[in-house]
Amino acid sequence: MIAATIDHTLLAATATEADIRHLCAEAKQWHFAAACVNPLYVSLAAQVLRETPVRVCTVVGFPLGATTTAVKIAETIGALEDGAQEIDMVGALGLLKGRAFGRYRDDIAAVIEVARRFPGVTVKVILETGLLTREEKQMAARAAAEAGADFVKTSTGMNGGGATVEDVKLLRATVPDQVRVKASGGIRTLAQAQALLSAGADRLGTSAGVALAREERRRHAANPVRGIERDDAED
Amino acid sequence: MIAATIDHTLLAATATEADIRHLCAEAKQWHFAAACVNPLYVSLAAQVLRETPVRVCTVVGFPLGATTTAVKIAETIGALEDGAQEIDMVGALGLLKGRAFGRYRDDIAAVIEVARRFPGVTVKVILETGLLTREEKQMAARAAAEAGADFVKTSTGMNGGGATVEDVKLLRATVPDQVRVKASGGIRTLAQAQALLSAGADRLGTSAGVALAREERRRHAANPVRGIERDDAED
Repeated sequence: MIAATIDHTLLAATATEADIRHLCAEAKQWHFAAACVNPLYVSLAAQVLRETPVRVCTVVGFPLGATTTAVKIAETIGALEDGAQEIDMVGALGLLKGRAFGRYRDDIAAVIEVARRFPGVTVKVILETGLLTREEKQMAARAAAEAGADFVKTSTGMNGGGATVEDVKLLRATVPDQVRVKASGGIRTLAQAQALLSAGADRLGTSAGVALAREERRRHAANPVRGIERDDAED
Repeated sequence: MIAATIDHTLLAATATEADIRHLCAEAKQWHFAAACVNPLYVSLAAQVLRETPVRVCTVVGFPLGATTTAVKIAETIGALEDGAQEIDMVGALGLLKGRAFGRYRDDIAAVIEVARRFPGVTVKVILETGLLTREEKQMAARAAAEAGADFVKTSTGMNGGGATVEDVKLLRATVPDQVRVKASGGIRTLAQAQALLSAGADRLGTSAGVALAREERRRHAANPVRGIERDDAED
């Protein structure tokens, strides 16, 4: 089931409380891994999703990654106190581009360090692969892994390109096994989602989760035997 | 001189320290009103621009406006301690869209309140007009004025459309005289810049400031008498 891999995401600036309630209801109904919302809505999402298995995910330093480490820390603590269980932080691309790799890593490490004070929190580091060279993608992924990230994540979906199979393969080959990969940005079809999972993605960030889960259900309903065979082959 | 109206702006996620030094040098050379950088670079810009008349401007809650008020406050205080003199904050569009006008205004007022603890600070409130209806633009501008904003500002330049003459006229007509208007987003030509100023803008946020100032200088050099006449006519 693809649903278990999906962070059901709504980060548009214009999203209202009603939109967030709708997102959370869908996440619960479809058994998505998490609902991903802006910090403004973490307390609402945590309230709506209380006593469900759906995790509350939010973003830090989003989408530019260009605020200070101190502000990223404050944003992380605030979100975790509000009930977030997953933090998708954006690395400081400008430091990476300026080859200040130590400062790039330290910014990430500082956020992870405060997040670790809260039990069971997952931290994902958004690299924004669409704006990086191949070498920068590798440097960024290594820095995030060194800093203790649970996931490296491809994209914000707001700057430059989204997730590609090639980038997911590169990140998977770059980080140690225990670091997972989240593909995000522009994921719209089931075929695309499955290709990213096959390439090594563990989680998908998308606003099209309901459409993907529906498409998967339709295919299984139309071809139940082939569906089971395919599932067996993937095990 | 158009230069005095320009906030020379570089907010790209990929901007490096070298890019910011270059921006600040240009701002100094061309006598722009301010250099506008992400919070990550405020301390660098403040150091480079020390003992110049160019003000250091930064952004808060940028570009989505969807972090919490507490984080916007922390970001504002951090930026002012780092040496910023102008704060361009993004209002919480989701609250505005959800017609939570009181909460929309209170978020802005909280940032302005902490900014007022620092002498001589200018606060601009980014409305993101490209994503708003005419009524929402008016509600947002009134809320910003009530909250004590020095400026209402059209756009982040990153979500939806940029500054239009129509929007500048609408904002000018909506806020009291003492509240100024900053036009920003997509300003690329001198004709466009002059049209926005004629419509009531007091400040322009653009990354094309050097090109605009050069174009103005070329025109005055080519037609000095006409240039002087035009200046006289505008007085």
